[in-house]
Amino acid sequence: LKRVVVLGAGLVGGLIARDVASDPEFDVTAYDASASALARLAGTRIATRRADLSDARAVRDAVAGVDAVAVALPGFMGTNAVRAVIEAGRPLADISFSPEDPLALDARARSQGVPAIVDCGVAPGLSNLFCGLAQEQTDALERVSILVGGLPARRVWPYEYRLVFSLTDVLEEYTRPSRFREAGRLVVREALSEVEPVDIPRVGTLEAFNTDGLRTLLSTIDAPDLKEKTLRWPGHADRMRMLRETGFLSNDPVVVGGVEVRPRALAEELLLRAWTRPDGEEEFTVLRVVAEGRRAGARVRLTWDLYDRTDAASGFTSMARTTGFPCAIAVRLLAQGAFTTPGVFPPERLAGSAAVVGALLDGLRARGVAIEAAVETVASA
Amino acid sequence: LKRVVVLGAGLVGGLIARDVASDPEFDVTAYDASASALARLAGTRIATRRADLSDARAVRDAVAGVDAVAVALPGFMGTNAVRAVIEAGRPLADISFSPEDPLALDARARSQGVPAIVDCGVAPGLSNLFCGLAQEQTDALERVSILVGGLPARRVWPYEYRLVFSLTDVLEEYTRPSRFREAGRLVVREALSEVEPVDIPRVGTLEAFNTDGLRTLLSTIDAPDLKEKTLRWPGHADRMRMLRETGFLSNDPVVVGGVEVRPRALAEELLLRAWTRPDGEEEFTVLRVVAEGRRAGARVRLTWDLYDRTDAASGFTSMARTTGFPCAIAVRLLAQGAFTTPGVFPPERLAGSAAVVGALLDGLRARGVAIEAAVETVASA
Repeated sequence: LKRVVVLGAGLVGGLIARDVASDPEFDVTAYDASASALARLAGTRIATRRADLSDARAVRDAVAGVDAVAVALPGFMGTNAVRAVIEAGRPLADISFSPEDPLALDARARSQGVPAIVDCGVAPGLSNLFCGLAQEQTDALERVSILVGGLPARRVWPYEYRLVFSLTDVLEEYTRPSRFREAGRLVVREALSEVEPVDIPRVGTLEAFNTDGLRTLLSTIDAPDLKEKTLRWPGHADRMRMLRETGFLSNDPVVVGGVEVRPRALAEELLLRAWTRPDGEEEFTVLRVVAEGRRAGARVRLTWDLYDRTDAASGFTSMARTTGFPCAIAVRLLAQGAFTTPGVFPPERLAGSAAVVGALLDGLRARGVAIEAAVETVASA
Repeated sequence: LKRVVVLGAGLVGGLIARDVASDPEFDVTAYDASASALARLAGTRIATRRADLSDARAVRDAVAGVDAVAVALPGFMGTNAVRAVIEAGRPLADISFSPEDPLALDARARSQGVPAIVDCGVAPGLSNLFCGLAQEQTDALERVSILVGGLPARRVWPYEYRLVFSLTDVLEEYTRPSRFREAGRLVVREALSEVEPVDIPRVGTLEAFNTDGLRTLLSTIDAPDLKEKTLRWPGHADRMRMLRETGFLSNDPVVVGGVEVRPRALAEELLLRAWTRPDGEEEFTVLRVVAEGRRAGARVRLTWDLYDRTDAASGFTSMARTTGFPCAIAVRLLAQGAFTTPGVFPPERLAGSAAVVGALLDGLRARGVAIEAAVETVASA
């Protein structure tokens, strides 16, 4: 029996634990600070333990001697937990989406002999994998475009948006300057800029705008043009820009009635009410990666289209599914010893391993996540 | 020499004082609590006095023995000041736009023998006058529509709006339910509702939406259909509805970071920054009243179109001009003894007095405010 520990039993961590535990080959223990999060795993064969995972010692104790670890913590706790797991010498797959650069831990993972698959969700995650595959499958990559969004099926005025991950992270996406590459140069533009309409199969026309999502891809993918944009129902970016430009998303305190107020704190309070997804409301996740490059004297376009909807049977959102399944598949591979190379691996660095890529794509298909890949010749180079 | 007192020396009160004082026939004294407001009248022949005009005794002292009084105070102070002037037995013209029904003081004004012309600005004000004229000039009034707005000439994303009166009053307009009459019945709809495009001569297409502006007209004008809508550049109402429906305009406290915050107070702080009119930026005021009714067996349509722009020479906004001039003209008439009927008179009740109407319309024309009136036969009844 392979022993797997899941750190964090929230929406995504819970799905990972259930997925791994559904195979009798694995013995799964889930850790969380919240008793109610752990209680949602009652009645499964998953063991649960309460622990304060912001404490590195608690993390080391939790992972001691296990075969592999899935890290599914809030972003602000992620890097410290990943570091503690590496120090403990345990293989890990992470989807915490921490603000820090995960490659900063690469040397330490190599010296510890630990494989650490990071940013292993949908975007970052599968988007990285497709970029890595594009780089593998071309002689020279020219441009890569990533479009990604998680959206409600039913469009409700005025935002036409529901939360499928942390509100704090969404507002951070809408305010942090976005970095990408254009004609070989690093470009920084404000979030929510360069809004353009995009036709998405099975969905219709969405809008795409700049957000800061490329992370490791800016250093690992060698394409002169490289960008990621977020997808929303048309009109959303303009509304959020209006809130931001009026100051409602600012963290600078404003004195109101004699007390200091952080406008973003009030906006979070009000938008949480407006954006909370009603139980059972259907949502979907779209990821489209389009890469162009030269191959054997021709210019080719490689396209990956992922489309997933809420799973009516389990109630899991497509966002939880497409984020959690890649991590669940990766942690299984690690526990089975199918990937043992020491170092930090964002998914683009897994693209050269046919076995890992095959396991990820086959595993997603088996779980009902539809991914269509296409190659076309667009012009002779 | 006729003695005129102006209570309130703000943007509009200052204009009224200057207008009346420009005629050597009048001796003008302006009162305000603010030394800086009074300082803007330095170098004119207007006498200035500081006084707390929320104190009825201070008002009575200020107006004792004068020939007429203009009341140009913030809405929340207006009614008390008007009452004090009536108690002091002095004729008055008022543009304070208080929330209370001014007709509640009618009996007292009659018993005191005082003429009190109230709501004597642009809307309420000239809009009331045109409604009164429509009622005078028809046998049976069928419908009256008032459209009014003060807007910046230059449209700047996202609100395309600048303050030409109090921000507090604008947000009150956007939140207070609007009352009007439809098929003879009182109707209440939420503010910012029933947005429709309207083509305005010399301007282009604006949007019109419900706000609560009819005031005395709901009791004085006998038309089965009677409505007033506010004009803005298209898109404004949707943005303000979004803020309101998200809770940003709510007066109900929200706990943020351990302290109670009134969202509207924060919104006022932020919108004040966004909506403050840069010095010298041009704005315009539009008022259109369209009335339909039967006259001598035919159906006629009577239209009044007012259009005014910032006065480059004086710097006065069209909103200050079209609000202040009617009040200035009225207070001159009162001081000259040209209107002495006791009672409270919103302008629709002046429509029967040809001399007063003539003085108002001639006076506005002389001050450069363009009003076009038209009558057309639309169908036989």
